[in-house]
Amino acid sequence: MLKVKIYTIGRCKEKWLSEALSEYEKRLQGRAELEWHLAKDDAQLIDWTHADPNLIALDPKGDLFTSEAFSLKLLQAGSRLSFVIGGAEGIPPKILSQAKRRWSLSPLTFTHQIVRLVLAEQIYRALEIDRNTPYHK
Amino acid sequence: MLKVKIYTIGRCKEKWLSEALSEYEKRLQGRAELEWHLAKDDAQLIDWTHADPNLIALDPKGDLFTSEAFSLKLLQAGSRLSFVIGGAEGIPPKILSQAKRRWSLSPLTFTHQIVRLVLAEQIYRALEIDRNTPYHK
Repeated sequence: MLKVKIYTIGRCKEKWLSEALSEYEKRLQGRAELEWHLAKDDAQLIDWTHADPNLIALDPKGDLFTSEAFSLKLLQAGSRLSFVIGGAEGIPPKILSQAKRRWSLSPLTFTHQIVRLVLAEQIYRALEIDRNTPYHK
Repeated sequence: MLKVKIYTIGRCKEKWLSEALSEYEKRLQGRAELEWHLAKDDAQLIDWTHADPNLIALDPKGDLFTSEAFSLKLLQAGSRLSFVIGGAEGIPPKILSQAKRRWSLSPLTFTHQIVRLVLAEQIYRALEIDRNTPYHK
């Protein structure tokens, strides 16, 4: 069972986002668990992430992958993973300098809501690629 | 006024997607119009796009941009633009070979629903970058 912590800023509770995320969380049931940590501000985000040894910062300037490469990287990274998504100002420099890994979902800047959705779908896709199902063709 | 045609496969009418898209379409009102052409299959997608002179194929292997570069490219591309998003099997080779431009929203593969959302948000972001508003910091 893959356990993924996702730290992000918790403002903006769009209904469409909750609906889309629960769809992927349902599909991941029994195989992966997404644990959302919604900080109220950058200070709390720094506080929550600073002692996490498995932290991956999601940043447009990070390493880019195809979905196949992302799947491999994710599954090689162990069963305990943590991602941090920045707020409107991006990821605080303090977190960026501390995170051992910096991955990118795209060189484009997305809203943090869209990052949450893209990440959840990509984790699901990674597991489907690993199982070699028709989801990813 | 920017007029953007978006050709894609019309299956899977997720409620969350309509809600998220209408949010961006509302914000774009008066500045850009997104015209969705939802084909029933690849054959119809090919048929609808083959005579479009402004076609941009969205493909993970296309040109990657930062949001700032995407904004420039988009605004330099004229006021009539067309994007084509592939279905589950990606963009049909016939369309790929015909499209003069091939842009990528990410080297990762997204569902075509997520591509629709990312594209709409990125068009909105492109116009906000051009207006130099605080939306894109």
